[in-house]
Amino acid sequence: MRSVCVIGLGLIGGSVLRAAAAAGYQVFGTAASAADRAAAEADGFTVVSTVDEAVIHAAERDSLIVLAVPLTAAPDVLTVVNRFAAKTRLTDVMSVKGPIAEAVRRYTPEARYVGGHPMAGKADSGWAAGDAKLFEGAAWVVAADEGTDPIVWAEVATLALECGAYVVPAGEGDHDAAVARISHLPHVLAAVLAAVGADGGPMAMALAAGSFADGTRVAGSDPALVKAMCEGNRDALLDAVDDALGRLGAARGSLASTGSLGATLESGYRARRAWEAGREQAPEPLTSVDLTAPEAMELLRSLGILGGRITSLDGMTAVGEYADWPI
Amino acid sequence: MRSVCVIGLGLIGGSVLRAAAAAGYQVFGTAASAADRAAAEADGFTVVSTVDEAVIHAAERDSLIVLAVPLTAAPDVLTVVNRFAAKTRLTDVMSVKGPIAEAVRRYTPEARYVGGHPMAGKADSGWAAGDAKLFEGAAWVVAADEGTDPIVWAEVATLALECGAYVVPAGEGDHDAAVARISHLPHVLAAVLAAVGADGGPMAMALAAGSFADGTRVAGSDPALVKAMCEGNRDALLDAVDDALGRLGAARGSLASTGSLGATLESGYRARRAWEAGREQAPEPLTSVDLTAPEAMELLRSLGILGGRITSLDGMTAVGEYADWPI
Repeated sequence: MRSVCVIGLGLIGGSVLRAAAAAGYQVFGTAASAADRAAAEADGFTVVSTVDEAVIHAAERDSLIVLAVPLTAAPDVLTVVNRFAAKTRLTDVMSVKGPIAEAVRRYTPEARYVGGHPMAGKADSGWAAGDAKLFEGAAWVVAADEGTDPIVWAEVATLALECGAYVVPAGEGDHDAAVARISHLPHVLAAVLAAVGADGGPMAMALAAGSFADGTRVAGSDPALVKAMCEGNRDALLDAVDDALGRLGAARGSLASTGSLGATLESGYRARRAWEAGREQAPEPLTSVDLTAPEAMELLRSLGILGGRITSLDGMTAVGEYADWPI
Repeated sequence: MRSVCVIGLGLIGGSVLRAAAAAGYQVFGTAASAADRAAAEADGFTVVSTVDEAVIHAAERDSLIVLAVPLTAAPDVLTVVNRFAAKTRLTDVMSVKGPIAEAVRRYTPEARYVGGHPMAGKADSGWAAGDAKLFEGAAWVVAADEGTDPIVWAEVATLALECGAYVVPAGEGDHDAAVARISHLPHVLAAVLAAVGADGGPMAMALAAGSFADGTRVAGSDPALVKAMCEGNRDALLDAVDDALGRLGAARGSLASTGSLGATLESGYRARRAWEAGREQAPEPLTSVDLTAPEAMELLRSLGILGGRITSLDGMTAVGEYADWPI
């Protein structure tokens, strides 16, 4: 029976444990938080007390190990993985790929690692916030860098698909650059907007409604988790923040000098409408990638770069669709 | 019978016409758009073809005139008001107060004008997007500057209350500074975020989900309407953009030098949570303002500055509640 060991039972790890169990995997896990461990156990899941125990069990059962801990906790966990299950099949569900891949190379160099990142979340955190259906219809990035073991890639992609997600193949760097723009920058801008609004005092707060409510929603997320996520992707996020500063500065200059915000608002409108149109598009004709071919990872990365996705696996053939993002 | 003449039948004007009719007012209106006029008429409302006709009817019926046109159209409409109904009772539902008050003083100086601004909206525009319930539970700013005629203030506040809103009294400048932060800046930041996201290409678009979706929602609004709204509040918006640039630049500097986004994310978290807590607070003990007293407008402005609101009118006594915004 296919077995999955989830290390870290917060919102994402806890949801993977539930979703994998619902899909028929044998699952077990552990968490640093005694409260999360107790809650998961009370919900009927097999939970062990320490990372050591979890990794030893995983080695015995030939489990796929899923890392779902904060990036800062990864070195300690990976050291344990290397001690008890050095050649394990390993993935993660963390929000940056470059730094965690670097940590894997350093702390558990023999592991058969393929990084992952489900693009799902909500403002609440911890085991109690988890949901077996969290990943339904969501993108789940599976890293497809050169040298990736296609067997493990297929196993990780299968887990993602069986959790209800579709798979977006991506190189580490491409992934990290993309999420800096569409996941980490939104948190920084939401925080800035919330603070500038509050600086307007009680009247501004009393008048704030739709646009402020939407624009600041993610500023209500646990700041420690957001901080770890954003700081873990520092280099790519700096590029994205610089682009935002450039565009906001240009808007400021134009408003001050000519009184116009036309260029800013029209480019934003085009971008948002293109994104909406892209999400609603009919699937393009299917494509398939033979995962055993030498160029498989390159083909997968090309598919991801073009906004495409893998929607099923048939043995070692990945079946997917290209998209047509009108940007 | 109390009568209301609405000039401009887009989303906001069309919603005022419907809500006032539902509240028992005799209503009629006009719009520059022949399509909006025809649609309103098809829905059973009295619609005249020109602003001249509307203002002449309003003078005959002693109607309260409600301006619901873009700021750029205000001078022409006000010139007609001055020609046919120079001493009319006049309000507006436009998103800035200083520039429209200035236009009133210039083009129809004898009008008994009290500015208004319902804080409600949605992404769609035009008569068809209007809704009699658009203002239910929303803030509706009613300007309370020195020299305001308390009779007209009470009439405008009554219209707002009967449309389902509560009234936030505010000076022109205080209003414009507040909405720059919580209504206009959110549109600018949403446009910037959408464009920076799209610059990431199809993969970024394909991975964008919750935080990008929320942070860019208002970027999908009609850019011509947003442009008119934001550009009409240029000075206050420049201050808000400068504050955002300052905070975003500080975040960038901290991330680059120390790797930390802690200060940015924590201040945003505090602000968002304070806003959520303020919205959910139980009403404070009631307060009342005698609108016939010499200090009435000053008291109303103080109430607004503190985040309070007027929730009913009893003759010339405005009854309301203070708030306790925890910022």
